[in-house]
Amino acid sequence: MLPAVANETVIVLIQNGLNIERPMFAAFPANVVLSGVSMIGASESRPGEVEQGFNDILYIGPFRNPSLDAEKERSAAQTFVKIYGAGGKTQCKYNADVGWTRWRKLVYNACLNPICAITDLDTGRIRLAEGAVEGLVRPAMKEIIAAGQASGYHLPPTIADDMINMDPLDLYLPPSMLQDLRKDNYIEYETILGEPLREGEKLGVPMPTLRVLYHLCQAIQWKNKEARGLVSVPPRGDFTAS
Amino acid sequence: MLPAVANETVIVLIQNGLNIERPMFAAFPANVVLSGVSMIGASESRPGEVEQGFNDILYIGPFRNPSLDAEKERSAAQTFVKIYGAGGKTQCKYNADVGWTRWRKLVYNACLNPICAITDLDTGRIRLAEGAVEGLVRPAMKEIIAAGQASGYHLPPTIADDMINMDPLDLYLPPSMLQDLRKDNYIEYETILGEPLREGEKLGVPMPTLRVLYHLCQAIQWKNKEARGLVSVPPRGDFTAS
Repeated sequence: MLPAVANETVIVLIQNGLNIERPMFAAFPANVVLSGVSMIGASESRPGEVEQGFNDILYIGPFRNPSLDAEKERSAAQTFVKIYGAGGKTQCKYNADVGWTRWRKLVYNACLNPICAITDLDTGRIRLAEGAVEGLVRPAMKEIIAAGQASGYHLPPTIADDMINMDPLDLYLPPSMLQDLRKDNYIEYETILGEPLREGEKLGVPMPTLRVLYHLCQAIQWKNKEARGLVSVPPRGDFTAS
Repeated sequence: MLPAVANETVIVLIQNGLNIERPMFAAFPANVVLSGVSMIGASESRPGEVEQGFNDILYIGPFRNPSLDAEKERSAAQTFVKIYGAGGKTQCKYNADVGWTRWRKLVYNACLNPICAITDLDTGRIRLAEGAVEGLVRPAMKEIIAAGQASGYHLPPTIADDMINMDPLDLYLPPSMLQDLRKDNYIEYETILGEPLREGEKLGVPMPTLRVLYHLCQAIQWKNKEARGLVSVPPRGDFTAS
């Protein structure tokens, strides 16, 4: 990425998760870094065939870098919104409070996403499955909402229901991590689950549900590594009954 | 089962889990009911081909029924031990404290068993997988040990390590629930996980790890029910972009 970034280059991270701007600030201390949060439901039903369930919306705003001019950051974000929306077919909105928007999306991504991946159930089925919403999804969301609150971001009281009911049930959307597992891809659990968990626990928020989900994802990721020969597994012993 | 049980019939439950004697006490109030806990590692490598990793041992003792004579119960258990071990090829031991033996086995069965099933990792791989033992297995086992303690059964301080290291790592044994999932069978999570969880929580023991594992198993079981057409799933909606 280094040679592609000039003095006035604006870097846009349209990626989920928390603290993703930190390595960018470190590598490009003089460049404006923008946050992009995309609200979209899409899945690859066949290789190369992407199905999009509803219209997406992209929220763009500056990751506040204390060593840069805030006005310059804001202006870069607004310029991007103008350019991206110019065709009239895309929805792109300026987003002043990037942290709030990221915590808001984490209510979905740190909770429903790993729960669907671990159980191999899409968002429709997880709502139908006995005990899953009340026993898993809601407790996990409560923890994320508390962690966001402790970080200074107050989410509305309807947020859990909003996120649970976001997609129509009968869309049966597999969230990204479930799609990745079904394609034997790595799962993106560190930025969307691990980082908010570490952030919340650092602030003293108890997050027992997310801790378990996190370690289950870690074990599942390890399996992906074994499939790629990246971890060594001793050969099977001989236990033939003597 | 009713017509098979006569006045003097002794019922032997060689089955895992907690409180399994209750329906038997209710249905056969005058019969001695024995507890059988089998310590065995076996898997069906091919249909009909059962591979046994090491010698099994069966613990037999009476489920104490307050309305029966304790001496009669003990004598029935000891008779069973004698008959079962008579051939000299099987190990069968009299077990005075049935509750202790059941909680001891639950340290393995309520923890390692669902964790392996949910992650699709055998007991060897779960020990190799990054973070799984310290992040999942040990916290779960601590909760079960505390629940057993609250129920009056004190397990030795080495119990978690004993259970984690029970099988040789390179035996790569899939515990029963993982074997069941791999064969698309129902999983036995209510008696070995749900019942100790309910028992522990009733006694005020916090069991956050086991709660999550329980609800994940419940969601996975629901998937098995869907596959058998036992739960109804509304048809997929039409969300073709308009």
